Amino acid sequence: MKPLKLHTDRLFPAEPRTRDIARALHATVRDLPIVSPHGHTDPRWFAYDDPFPNPSELLIVPDHYVFRMLMSQGVKLEELGVPTRDGSPTETDPRAIWHRFAAHYHLFRGTPSRMWLDWVFAETFGIDVRLGADTADHYYDVIDAALKTPAFRPRALFERHGIEVIATTEGPLDPLDHHRAIRASGWGGRVITAYRPDPVMDPAVRGFADNVRAFCAMAGEDAGSFAGYLRAHERRRADFRAAGATSTDHGHPTAFTAHLGKAEIEALYASVMSGPVSDRDAELFRGHMLVEMARMSIEDGMVMQLHPGVHRSHNAAVLARFGRDKGGDIPAAGEFVQALKPLLDLYGNDPRLTLILFTLDEDVYSRELAPLAGHYPALRLGPPWWFHDSPEGMRRFRERATETAGFYNMVGFNDDTRAFLSIPARHDMARRMDCAWLARLVAEHRLEEDEAFELARALSYDLVKQAYKL
Amino acid sequence: MKPLKLHTDRLFPAEPRTRDIARALHATVRDLPIVSPHGHTDPRWFAYDDPFPNPSELLIVPDHYVFRMLMSQGVKLEELGVPTRDGSPTETDPRAIWHRFAAHYHLFRGTPSRMWLDWVFAETFGIDVRLGADTADHYYDVIDAALKTPAFRPRALFERHGIEVIATTEGPLDPLDHHRAIRASGWGGRVITAYRPDPVMDPAVRGFADNVRAFCAMAGEDAGSFAGYLRAHERRRADFRAAGATSTDHGHPTAFTAHLGKAEIEALYASVMSGPVSDRDAELFRGHMLVEMARMSIEDGMVMQLHPGVHRSHNAAVLARFGRDKGGDIPAAGEFVQALKPLLDLYGNDPRLTLILFTLDEDVYSRELAPLAGHYPALRLGPPWWFHDSPEGMRRFRERATETAGFYNMVGFNDDTRAFLSIPARHDMARRMDCAWLARLVAEHRLEEDEAFELARALSYDLVKQAYKL
Amino acid sequence: MKPLKLHTDRLFPAEPRTRDIARALHATVRDLPIVSPHGHTDPRWFAYDDPFPNPSELLIVPDHYVFRMLMSQGVKLEELGVPTRDGSPTETDPRAIWHRFAAHYHLFRGTPSRMWLDWVFAETFGIDVRLGADTADHYYDVIDAALKTPAFRPRALFERHGIEVIATTEGPLDPLDHHRAIRASGWGGRVITAYRPDPVMDPAVRGFADNVRAFCAMAGEDAGSFAGYLRAHERRRADFRAAGATSTDHGHPTAFTAHLGKAEIEALYASVMSGPVSDRDAELFRGHMLVEMARMSIEDGMVMQLHPGVHRSHNAAVLARFGRDKGGDIPAAGEFVQALKPLLDLYGNDPRLTLILFTLDEDVYSRELAPLAGHYPALRLGPPWWFHDSPEGMRRFRERATETAGFYNMVGFNDDTRAFLSIPARHDMARRMDCAWLARLVAEHRLEEDEAFELARALSYDLVKQAYKL
Repeated sequence: MKPLKLHTDRLFPAEPRTRDIARALHATVRDLPIVSPHGHTDPRWFAYDDPFPNPSELLIVPDHYVFRMLMSQGVKLEELGVPTRDGSPTETDPRAIWHRFAAHYHLFRGTPSRMWLDWVFAETFGIDVRLGADTADHYYDVIDAALKTPAFRPRALFERHGIEVIATTEGPLDPLDHHRAIRASGWGGRVITAYRPDPVMDPAVRGFADNVRAFCAMAGEDAGSFAGYLRAHERRRADFRAAGATSTDHGHPTAFTAHLGKAEIEALYASVMSGPVSDRDAELFRGHMLVEMARMSIEDGMVMQLHPGVHRSHNAAVLARFGRDKGGDIPAAGEFVQALKPLLDLYGNDPRLTLILFTLDEDVYSRELAPLAGHYPALRLGPPWWFHDSPEGMRRFRERATETAGFYNMVGFNDDTRAFLSIPARHDMARRMDCAWLARLVAEHRLEEDEAFELARALSYDLVKQAYKL
Repeated sequence: MKPLKLHTDRLFPAEPRTRDIARALHATVRDLPIVSPHGHTDPRWFAYDDPFPNPSELLIVPDHYVFRMLMSQGVKLEELGVPTRDGSPTETDPRAIWHRFAAHYHLFRGTPSRMWLDWVFAETFGIDVRLGADTADHYYDVIDAALKTPAFRPRALFERHGIEVIATTEGPLDPLDHHRAIRASGWGGRVITAYRPDPVMDPAVRGFADNVRAFCAMAGEDAGSFAGYLRAHERRRADFRAAGATSTDHGHPTAFTAHLGKAEIEALYASVMSGPVSDRDAELFRGHMLVEMARMSIEDGMVMQLHPGVHRSHNAAVLARFGRDKGGDIPAAGEFVQALKPLLDLYGNDPRLTLILFTLDEDVYSRELAPLAGHYPALRLGPPWWFHDSPEGMRRFRERATETAGFYNMVGFNDDTRAFLSIPARHDMARRMDCAWLARLVAEHRLEEDEAFELARALSYDLVKQAYKL
Repeated sequence: MKPLKLHTDRLFPAEPRTRDIARALHATVRDLPIVSPHGHTDPRWFAYDDPFPNPSELLIVPDHYVFRMLMSQGVKLEELGVPTRDGSPTETDPRAIWHRFAAHYHLFRGTPSRMWLDWVFAETFGIDVRLGADTADHYYDVIDAALKTPAFRPRALFERHGIEVIATTEGPLDPLDHHRAIRASGWGGRVITAYRPDPVMDPAVRGFADNVRAFCAMAGEDAGSFAGYLRAHERRRADFRAAGATSTDHGHPTAFTAHLGKAEIEALYASVMSGPVSDRDAELFRGHMLVEMARMSIEDGMVMQLHPGVHRSHNAAVLARFGRDKGGDIPAAGEFVQALKPLLDLYGNDPRLTLILFTLDEDVYSRELAPLAGHYPALRLGPPWWFHDSPEGMRRFRERATETAGFYNMVGFNDDTRAFLSIPARHDMARRMDCAWLARLVAEHRLEEDEAFELARALSYDLVKQAYKL
């Protein structure tokens, strides 16, 4: 058995002077509360505080970072207990699943998943040996036993890990019952929602027209007119704000925006509601609706997030058998300069709007995003996202975006995860990487030390609270 | 008040052995004269040697790097005294402008503007405290007083900063009077022009046909025929050479080139002169004219520069109210391999042609530009441009282009600035970054130390003089 | 004369702790045998073991890395003895060619060619002074004398450099006589072939239909039907396997794949065989045939390599006078996510398929290739290719691909060269760069030291053997 020990200098530069600066910076932000403005945790955890079922259902079955890598090396999703769409059986023994994971743990070397998991094992569960085939049972037993104790229920973990506020993400048809339950429970943890209207804004989504009709019905508005549909958004945004939301989120295929005339959008709405919908009409409708969302954000103060550019469910067989979000999403090349112009022409100079941009195409960091954010008052840059939420990904973002956008057009860190236990591990990684970057700037005399201390705090805590109005 | 002190090791790697090599290299190039082969300083400064008006009009109002960042964080261009197109009033009190700038100076942390400005404050004006709200008046008073003295007039600064030669950029309709005045003045500073014919080569420019008519009239040629138009270029190029020019510069939307047949280009010329002009015809005309420019360069020896790929004036409201060049230019994705083929098929192997390529799309460094420059005798790579004229931008360029293009297909540094005082600061940054890069190669035993000394000098001085024939 | 000495720490990080780790890692892989699964050496060398003719014909005339750089700085290919297509004379004096090369050796500073050549000079030929005009004759004499000795014949060099196995690449019309001769010779060196069917799979290739007819005739199949053509592939693949091949290789313009219906592909086959061929039909045919190749790979176990995205013979004048492969190939932007979907929909989840992807477009490392390889069981990532087979290129690949693809979806190193003497130099560079990367991960506590030792061996030896079934 090999020891598991998180080194106190992990992720800091090896060069001693730079490392010393990174250490000093990190000491001042290590214990700051966690602000998690965007993610996909399940509000039921916080509403009902039930124990997590077992190690595999907590850490493997729902984590697409984990099972995509195992699958790439020949482990079948069935063997990992990922449920099928048709209910055909997959592995049901959580210990067997855990053993398969443990036997392949070497596959994660060099990946952020490995560092997050090791953090969880060491810090959350207090394990001091490395995961492998030889320690699989020990791990399973320790974690399983812990999960049965009150200290490992969702609310206790929330508090133990210093989460000041966390946002979940709900669709426009969500009744927000779980969020209501959280508030009604009297528990003091701050869990808020975020408005993600894709199912009623993207005519390419299966069931779009039915979604819109249900959505308008929920809001007491008339789905038969575009004006009614817009009012339904306004009402549901208000509902979400009442459940704490300060932001909307938009997961479109592209960053395309458009501003159609009144007659044109009304006709387009009628057309996409009666289907079939062409690719071009779907893009136009989404694009116009982003502009409407920006307009509403100016009116109601909700911060707008745009997460474009993913080819969803690329693997046809996995989609057919297991459904969406099963590790088969692949980034697409991005374009923001032309795409956002219609929106920016209308609202880009309005200080009441905050539009936070994310991308999976790192090429646009220095070519498009930093120049846009370093100019338009309404724009801010989200942190490296998804595949790029990693040490090298963070370093590339800082190196490519900072010189043109500056630090103050950035919004700190998002963990963007459904893996609740990884949240403190992800913030730990982000804070260390930011301190490492700042330390390098100081060591190369590109930044003064007192400024680096201010910026370390800003990147860990202040900027995210300001940008998301938290 | 916090001290302002430029560290002698700034921008050098922190690792001690590498830093020592960088120091040694830098000591041999630090005091070499400045050769500035491409930029946008105003020849009137050198022709008439009038004092600069005040700190804000010198350092803030004309510097789009500065006001774009302030604007991105909510400071209005009106508050910074940027003049409007319609003459509607903006801030006129330079001290008030300076205070706004000083109060937001933290926004520039991590940007090259911050390092350039600090250099100017410390080296040019001798200020030893950091800029901020608390020191704004001190700064204003020191700089304003200095500007009233002979030592801070343009020619004195030119000499003090060791400028051996500087090129301005003039349009094809410029009478070059200021350059004549410089030569007539008897002053020994070498200020030359460069030929930037975009207004008469790009049919998409407003007023194109009028420009061409005026241009042909200046040259005594007939605008009614393409042959006359070409001869006008030849004559005006000769005028520019008489004003010292050794280069032309082309700021096209793309790097597209084309070689049309005689009848085809004559018909296209007639068409773009009588307007309206389609996007395709404008691109074809620009593309063909780049080939004509290459042909003329082979004949008259002028070095050709291509600066493609900028979406100009992206911000519609800023364009309408303040005009062009107000910080709203955004890079565009670039393509050179297909685009340049027609030109290269004709002249790419001709050693008499030097075509220097620039880009704002860093993706093409390793994929397109370095492979092209490492093959075609006519091609050279310009340094990192505009948004990428920064420490990280320079590092990326060296890392991505050197291994395939080699050092000798590069042309040293361009400051490309209209901010006269920043010129020595920019060359200082470039020389330090080049020494840092060379030091790393030496420290990793990828280059011998004696070669690094030769290359440090080449990158700072020799290559630019050779490439630009200065 | 300056000394030539390969530093034992070359390519290792300068930071002492990291360098020490790199040294320790490297000591364990330095002497591992060389596995060269993909390249372009000439099987005649190993079949007949004739001496290499002279220094210039060995090291300059055939090396496009060398002559492209010399050409870019004005040395004519004629002056370097590159043969013309029409037989018109070029330089025939190998010593004169060598002198030209030596006089321009400074052009290679900072390029991988310089490091490879110095390795060959120092390690293979034992030269201890640096190449330059002053040492050109000494070099020529030493190398020329060595080449006349048995120790410098191909087989002796093969053995001396520890090559365990090397793959050449042959076209589908190759009778494989030289490979038969190698086996018949009784020499123990393992030299295998690889199946590169581009001339009979790409209808855009000159002579395609004639190639296909000859190909089917070789295989005893009927070129008149698509079924016969497919069977000819199956037979020739078997012939290649009999000559040791474990892989196929495909050098298509793009990564496009397609799966046409039976009637459609039969009609397309008839059409491309009768010509003329549209660009679209050529792309469709290539795309469909990649899918057929994948199907055959599943059946016969051959590993599939895809090397897409090169604009071949960009320089029209060089192509006309000297032919293909003369340094004028330029990378093209790549796209894999859409392009590979048809193939992956059919076979991407089949563990019997190994499809190794290469690219010259580094942008796709983190955006496309690593996400694809970190998901699909059939996909693996080839090492940095051609222009990116360099220290910085390797570093970028590791930094951008590892976090998402993991180490185990990579296949170690390919030298991919026709420059036989550079093979050990290239593997030396790759091993050093991998150890440098692993050392950084260890020094930053992102990987445990025992894991780094396993990975150093995996990247140098184990992964390539597994992936290529060697």
